[in-house]
Amino acid sequence: MTKARLMTPGPVEVPPEVMLEMARPITHHRTAEFRTLLGEVVELVQYVLQTKNDVFVLTSSGSGAMEAALVNTCPPGSKAIAVVAGKFGERWRDLCKAFGVECIELDVEWGHAVDPALIEKTLAENPDVQAVFLQHSETSTGCAVDLEAIGKVVAKTDAILVADCITSAGALELRCDQWGVDIAVTGSQKAFMLPPGLGFISVSPKAWAKIDANEKPACLYFDLKAYRKSMTKSDTPYTPANTLILAAKKALSMIKETGIENVWSGTKTRYNALRAGCETLGLTLFAADPSFSVVTIKLPESIDGAEFIKLLQSKFGVKVAGGQAHLKGRIFRVSTMGFVDPLDCLAVMGAIELTLSAMDHPIDYGQGLAAAEKALVEG
Amino acid sequence: MTKARLMTPGPVEVPPEVMLEMARPITHHRTAEFRTLLGEVVELVQYVLQTKNDVFVLTSSGSGAMEAALVNTCPPGSKAIAVVAGKFGERWRDLCKAFGVECIELDVEWGHAVDPALIEKTLAENPDVQAVFLQHSETSTGCAVDLEAIGKVVAKTDAILVADCITSAGALELRCDQWGVDIAVTGSQKAFMLPPGLGFISVSPKAWAKIDANEKPACLYFDLKAYRKSMTKSDTPYTPANTLILAAKKALSMIKETGIENVWSGTKTRYNALRAGCETLGLTLFAADPSFSVVTIKLPESIDGAEFIKLLQSKFGVKVAGGQAHLKGRIFRVSTMGFVDPLDCLAVMGAIELTLSAMDHPIDYGQGLAAAEKALVEG
Repeated sequence: MTKARLMTPGPVEVPPEVMLEMARPITHHRTAEFRTLLGEVVELVQYVLQTKNDVFVLTSSGSGAMEAALVNTCPPGSKAIAVVAGKFGERWRDLCKAFGVECIELDVEWGHAVDPALIEKTLAENPDVQAVFLQHSETSTGCAVDLEAIGKVVAKTDAILVADCITSAGALELRCDQWGVDIAVTGSQKAFMLPPGLGFISVSPKAWAKIDANEKPACLYFDLKAYRKSMTKSDTPYTPANTLILAAKKALSMIKETGIENVWSGTKTRYNALRAGCETLGLTLFAADPSFSVVTIKLPESIDGAEFIKLLQSKFGVKVAGGQAHLKGRIFRVSTMGFVDPLDCLAVMGAIELTLSAMDHPIDYGQGLAAAEKALVEG
Repeated sequence: MTKARLMTPGPVEVPPEVMLEMARPITHHRTAEFRTLLGEVVELVQYVLQTKNDVFVLTSSGSGAMEAALVNTCPPGSKAIAVVAGKFGERWRDLCKAFGVECIELDVEWGHAVDPALIEKTLAENPDVQAVFLQHSETSTGCAVDLEAIGKVVAKTDAILVADCITSAGALELRCDQWGVDIAVTGSQKAFMLPPGLGFISVSPKAWAKIDANEKPACLYFDLKAYRKSMTKSDTPYTPANTLILAAKKALSMIKETGIENVWSGTKTRYNALRAGCETLGLTLFAADPSFSVVTIKLPESIDGAEFIKLLQSKFGVKVAGGQAHLKGRIFRVSTMGFVDPLDCLAVMGAIELTLSAMDHPIDYGQGLAAAEKALVEG
């Protein structure tokens, strides 16, 4: 019997006690019980995002929350900046295109973080920009930006800062209010330790001003004004995925009990362990400016990337992700976020060593493991 | 210990074996296993809808599927007919408004079915109409339309027929292909016996022609062309709620094993039982043209509607729905769809008798029950 270890950067494993929440009898959502539950979940999300801003729970993937962020703040014909440094950055650009928003695309080499000074310059040249869209952690490359520095730059302008925090919220240090993140979006199947199906979005007063200036929402399902109106009664405008919301209470409570700063530092420690192990094996990391939630590792030229990923799973039950677009076959990506513990990192490190060895890549058994373990001890 | 009986017209109870599917370890969605699963679920939905048309699974509520139906087929400035005979008919009108579609509103008295001849006349007067939007079963009133007759009328024109089948699919006789339903939308938490969180949509070739004529989708998250492209690989464009899709396979397989015609006739039998029981108690039904999935019952003038619903739950654990909008406090609604069996109808009938009696409404104990039981025997 091989034990399955889901180590992809989303979905991540869900704690058994959270899974069991979803096997509880179905309840109705137009009840005092549900309203209490939704209120509790919103407070927990606010804690994870470190924000006092309004938070809404959407029945959609994180992509739906991204769409909500854009359609509510940027009317057709308005102007926005999109940082494109990977596959999910392209999503912001595509959303602008779909909704008739003029997009100033800041193309950044994949694996590198955008320079806050470039955003500052672009905003100065385009004072009519409504919003700056970017990824805090770009899942396709395992790269993170300096959101704090960017927040300072954007705060000085009329534009709002919209951050895709899908693989950062609950994993990387993220202080939405302190850093000036006007809208943060995330999804359930990442560090929130839930199955896919929920999107989350926070909205600052500065963002509300943009939204309220829009006479007409660009859509109904993602109309944040309707969500705000319903939330005055701790309700949702459309039927919510209430089993997932029940599970969210459990999973996010586990994060709160652990303490968000401990969750952040634990993610970083696991990242450091995998990094140290891989580098000891002579593997190099892809991201110049790494996100601690996703370790992105280049494969040696001699290794067939697809075969490597296939063997990791078939021989050891370890499921990791490959590269996307032009990185297909060249990298593999391992999640350190969510329900992953230090021993999981050692298990995965062992599987990497054994798989490389099985593929005739020279390995000194245990060297990567030893380095990873040492990094775990160092924290 | 009071046993909870969720008898609202959505969410409905979920069979225990389906709930347990959701407690299984999380899997990744970009895998051969998921693609096989999605293909199976699509085939099962096609079976339930009696269609060979394309079917897509959306991570949203049924409201999201309604939005998808409208934004893909009706570009801004185009013309559509919306039948408004209840709260969910108003949704079609609101969607038209939100997306700049000129809406010809056919207002029908709540509880009554639209006359197919009215649709025929309106289409003849407006040959440029893109689509006719209506509810097969209007959940707010418990009323159903003659979808077969309407299908014949619309098929003769260039317009497509878009039916909200949220409380009809898997409950009322519904033969999408035979009847000419171009787009059927539904949600998971009704007769599909699942928690909320999934929307389903079927698309006919005639509907695809309208969609393909739209150069630009009105949105990204609900862009059906993107879903069609992904489905060529049995995939989804955005992260799907895969635990719910796993549960869908189980629940829809139970429907298939029962046989869709048996499911339809079982729903009608349960409706007849509750109807007979209530009428024997002197209560009258609200809908002149009833949907067999939702029994909508008028309360006697002397009964406080909110109190009645509260007592049903607090004394007997039976959760039913009240009226919406101007029907608030005047009616209550009981689901006969999904995971409800004949004995549940007797239990609910007993709870209705006992609650009315507790509220000093004169009741001959057991008369309603006897009539309901007799109706069950008659089928």
